[in-house]
Amino acid sequence: MTLKIVAIAGGVGGAKLAEGLYRVLPANALTVIVNTADDFEHLGLHISPDLDTVCYTLAGIANPETGWGRDEETWNALDNISSLGGPDWFRLGDRDLGMHLERTRRLHDGQSLSEITAQFCAIWKVNAQVLPMSNHPVATIVDTYEGELAFQEYFVARRCEPVVRGFRFEGVQIAAPAPGVLEAIEAADVVVICPSNPWVSIDPVLAVPGIREAIQTKPTLAVSPIIRGQTVKGPAAKMFVELGIKPSAEAVAAHYGRLLSAYVFDRADAEQTKAIEALGIMSHMTDTLMNGPKDRQRLAGEIIEFVQRVIVETPVKSYL
Amino acid sequence: MTLKIVAIAGGVGGAKLAEGLYRVLPANALTVIVNTADDFEHLGLHISPDLDTVCYTLAGIANPETGWGRDEETWNALDNISSLGGPDWFRLGDRDLGMHLERTRRLHDGQSLSEITAQFCAIWKVNAQVLPMSNHPVATIVDTYEGELAFQEYFVARRCEPVVRGFRFEGVQIAAPAPGVLEAIEAADVVVICPSNPWVSIDPVLAVPGIREAIQTKPTLAVSPIIRGQTVKGPAAKMFVELGIKPSAEAVAAHYGRLLSAYVFDRADAEQTKAIEALGIMSHMTDTLMNGPKDRQRLAGEIIEFVQRVIVETPVKSYL
Repeated sequence: MTLKIVAIAGGVGGAKLAEGLYRVLPANALTVIVNTADDFEHLGLHISPDLDTVCYTLAGIANPETGWGRDEETWNALDNISSLGGPDWFRLGDRDLGMHLERTRRLHDGQSLSEITAQFCAIWKVNAQVLPMSNHPVATIVDTYEGELAFQEYFVARRCEPVVRGFRFEGVQIAAPAPGVLEAIEAADVVVICPSNPWVSIDPVLAVPGIREAIQTKPTLAVSPIIRGQTVKGPAAKMFVELGIKPSAEAVAAHYGRLLSAYVFDRADAEQTKAIEALGIMSHMTDTLMNGPKDRQRLAGEIIEFVQRVIVETPVKSYL
Repeated sequence: MTLKIVAIAGGVGGAKLAEGLYRVLPANALTVIVNTADDFEHLGLHISPDLDTVCYTLAGIANPETGWGRDEETWNALDNISSLGGPDWFRLGDRDLGMHLERTRRLHDGQSLSEITAQFCAIWKVNAQVLPMSNHPVATIVDTYEGELAFQEYFVARRCEPVVRGFRFEGVQIAAPAPGVLEAIEAADVVVICPSNPWVSIDPVLAVPGIREAIQTKPTLAVSPIIRGQTVKGPAAKMFVELGIKPSAEAVAAHYGRLLSAYVFDRADAEQTKAIEALGIMSHMTDTLMNGPKDRQRLAGEIIEFVQRVIVETPVKSYL
């Protein structure tokens, strides 16, 4: 099996499938391109939530309960910040803080986020390429009926309560793909869009000039993050509703539109098969819920089989 | 007892006597003015080693083994920095890091070091005023036969090995005493120079424009950091030797010179009594080694008694 895969991922949900692919594929066959539009500065530290979740998950050092943060974590620094009346709304454990301090130090030293990520992944013995979508700052701004909110303000402080009416990715017009991103897509046999939030995890990646165009030239498969009109985690379904779209596996496929050549969705949404195929997309129905490492690898294995059967054998997208 | 005392202190040794005075005096009778010429930036954090040692010690949350850092400390962040190949030479525990992150955040927000110190001390219920000598950056530069070294480079990285030939306090000419410093000295009945390193802990404080002049108007007592030609901790004795001065209790008294009206030194140095008194200084000989909280309070009590007996009754320095 020499299939080269590029996965596009956001945080927890995306990291789960990325890990499944990583465990199933041979070493160095996987590149994960990760959303960094949620990145922000906090306590003087560069925070990159999705990138960290993907790296920790592939490294096998993620907190198995939460999906984000480090395993065997302690919280003494944050407890102390809290006791001094400081901002404790963003949960940074002690081990995690060590990584953040060292990463921020290297960034201030002039190294790029992608270089540092590669260095850390080497130390963590991650035999996959993990790339931030860009080394340039991009910030998701959530437009709500209460006004525009920075992503973390919307996501953490306001718990996704404000009703959204749109999104913009500040800075994305002048953001270049991180070194290696376009090369990895170019070298890939297939691009897999992980079951992450289409609006705020995947769209920012696709908005980086050059990335959508590169993906467009490749067989591309997405996995639905929506099952029975709901998400396992996060506000994707709520966002569809607020934007006037019924949340469904089909709605996600329609959202990605012409980018997709294949689509994987849950058995629970069997009745949507015709609608999805009417979009001109080859589909595969299976159990997409990833409760544990076994589920992740099983789903990843099915995706790879499906890809080899229907996509790689068909080198050019039918609609091109 | 309504004696108002200003203590001038560096790190561990100074903090021990400051704590003794704090426990013996009524609430809010003590102001500690702390050396900040060892301050530096590390991992993007503002580090203020002496200030932290004094605050943690007065707050009763210092590590009782080391004298510096926090009690009940864990080291997960630093271990992680270390595992990523980052700088781990400066020991910052997890609890301590929480304080540093929050302090640095407030500094970047535009608050001053003295304001933040007052806020933290209030939270820690420290009923003494702890003041950095200045809110302006001052940096001790150690001139050695290997060239000039920043203090932490000399002290931590080079373990005080390079032979010194002098010191300068970069920025001190334009540093103002922190708000409250001159007022506290003005209001004090006596100034106590703690048994800290004269060259690199006390001299920087005295070098801040206005501080030496203010102290000069007050009865001032110093406690010798040198016993039997040696220091309990730190390079003070080694520095005297390298500067061509025999390290002794007398040498420290001579170093402070006309600033002193009284001096406390160890019984072990009884033979120096005459030489010390020949400097025109009233002297008190006792056990100056502070092994535990009881020693600190006993020494502080003796100092206060001595002060009340010989100094406060003599309002103007004899040599003025």
